[in-house]
Amino acid sequence: MTDSTKPLGEFDLIERFFKNRANQQSKNYPQILLGIGDDCALIGAEKSFNSNSLKDLAISTDMLVEGRHFLPDANPYLLGHKCLAVNLSDLAAMGASPLGFTLAISMPEVKASWLEAFSNGLFDLANQHQCPLIGGDTTAGPLTISITVFGSVSGGEALARHKAQVGDDIWVSHQVGDARLALGALRHEWPLSAEEFNAVSGRMHAPTPRVDLGQKLLGIANAAIDISDGLLGDLSHILRQSKVSAEVFIDEVPGSDVLKSKSLELQRLCKLSGGDDYELCFTAPPEKTAAINGLSKELGFALTKIGKVTSSSTQLITLIDGDGHPLPPNLSAQYLQSFDHFQ
Amino acid sequence: MTDSTKPLGEFDLIERFFKNRANQQSKNYPQILLGIGDDCALIGAEKSFNSNSLKDLAISTDMLVEGRHFLPDANPYLLGHKCLAVNLSDLAAMGASPLGFTLAISMPEVKASWLEAFSNGLFDLANQHQCPLIGGDTTAGPLTISITVFGSVSGGEALARHKAQVGDDIWVSHQVGDARLALGALRHEWPLSAEEFNAVSGRMHAPTPRVDLGQKLLGIANAAIDISDGLLGDLSHILRQSKVSAEVFIDEVPGSDVLKSKSLELQRLCKLSGGDDYELCFTAPPEKTAAINGLSKELGFALTKIGKVTSSSTQLITLIDGDGHPLPPNLSAQYLQSFDHFQ
Repeated sequence: MTDSTKPLGEFDLIERFFKNRANQQSKNYPQILLGIGDDCALIGAEKSFNSNSLKDLAISTDMLVEGRHFLPDANPYLLGHKCLAVNLSDLAAMGASPLGFTLAISMPEVKASWLEAFSNGLFDLANQHQCPLIGGDTTAGPLTISITVFGSVSGGEALARHKAQVGDDIWVSHQVGDARLALGALRHEWPLSAEEFNAVSGRMHAPTPRVDLGQKLLGIANAAIDISDGLLGDLSHILRQSKVSAEVFIDEVPGSDVLKSKSLELQRLCKLSGGDDYELCFTAPPEKTAAINGLSKELGFALTKIGKVTSSSTQLITLIDGDGHPLPPNLSAQYLQSFDHFQ
Repeated sequence: MTDSTKPLGEFDLIERFFKNRANQQSKNYPQILLGIGDDCALIGAEKSFNSNSLKDLAISTDMLVEGRHFLPDANPYLLGHKCLAVNLSDLAAMGASPLGFTLAISMPEVKASWLEAFSNGLFDLANQHQCPLIGGDTTAGPLTISITVFGSVSGGEALARHKAQVGDDIWVSHQVGDARLALGALRHEWPLSAEEFNAVSGRMHAPTPRVDLGQKLLGIANAAIDISDGLLGDLSHILRQSKVSAEVFIDEVPGSDVLKSKSLELQRLCKLSGGDDYELCFTAPPEKTAAINGLSKELGFALTKIGKVTSSSTQLITLIDGDGHPLPPNLSAQYLQSFDHFQ
């Protein structure tokens, strides 16, 4: 129980909700030589990078701003979860194993109840992925949360975006589109029943980073990316960086039962252009199909073949419908448009 | 020359001022296997952590908010410099060598001229310290800048705050107090002539992180900290974490000629409680005095003995004046009060 009537200063606040919990957590991780409370955190090379095989360090950073990435009344537990989830998802897309993360947060006021819920969401997910909080900065200002996450991956094995090969199959994990379906209902773009909304909104508020899948894809997949801005937009990053093209069988892209009950047009919009699902899209040679199907059984969610990497200098995506026909160019362009935070 | 009349989207903006420059910069650093443009950056273990000797990874993060840490009309070149400088200063305080940094920035509008100057300030300092930008996130929102910096330090050798020993001398680099003297003039707490202000304001706007000094103190100093919140406040972190006390000869603390021309009271206030100087305060055994004096000659700035680590369970600082007398408790308390971002 916390006493939220007593005003807290910065140091009390950090100690109660972040530093003490973080340093308690770090005790379980021998690679963390120094956690919060010095000029820097220290991750021990001997106990992390050099164990077993030579390992590279993977690093990703994200910033979430109130009013832009979440609403002022966002549930602080889910917000704590999501801030870390989107960063863990980047580690997953490289096949990296989490080592730890830093948190920089500015907030307009010190509210113990908010911080308690936020830090619970954050630490619950961090503990689930053995990813200790090792450093941070807290200051007054508009609510803005910036997380940087670190992971290790065996030397040279990371699933980079430039490694897709002509002939690779394109795969996607679990289902996509529900986050966009829920967002559209919130924005009154289309109606959802309360039951439908409850079934899909968790995908928007509390995404599941596919950290295990990413690690298990090392040696199986060539390239990978997490779906944050939309399947086609994110896949196009792989294509551009690998200098290849692709065919995507758009009606093979897996969606939830709720999404499948909607019009074909809405299904396609949500699955192809909707962001925030944080599933993995990856490419792998056809001879890895059995291994990938085995992984799907082991992990308990679908891994679905949705396209093929083809050769071409144009680095374009051709969308193929359920009858095997390419979509008309204007419809194609509509799905292919990407996402610009400033437009 | 840039064309600042054309509106830029997020991707153009990142590419022009950050990504292209960062990836150009990274080419000079073989340890950067992947820079900006994938889900994570990758730092190669073989080319960094394992070279020569076993190395640990040092990590620090800071967030700067407009209106809190800098004014809306702050010079963007100096702001770019300062954002990175405060993080490099944390690496310096551990004795770590920079490996790279990430930048997360939210800003209300895309203004090419501002970004050009900001990125110039950032990259000029980064290049000076061989510290490439390896990852980032850019979004719309109130101007907020969060940097996370990474460095390597030989296994077990980092200058941590908990390593001060009874009998150690306490040292400070160069001079302290000018940043506070300039800030006070801006706040109309005291007057400075234009000439005086010009002489000292650089210490506030463009601090010099003591990265070389930090690295050279490995094997010489026991504990170190960078002076960001004020000499006594920062020293007290070392004392608390090392479970020791200290005597500080307050009139031995080195100040600039401008500061020395002010009243004794103002000198003490600026040197003891003023923050933002980003000099290093460190402790070392008396037998290292010659080595430290040698370092001072090599680096071209003063390293001054300002106190002693003493034994006591109270972890207090005793302030000694120029006549060798302890300061009265109420005056002492005034200098010892620290800094709380929320109060």
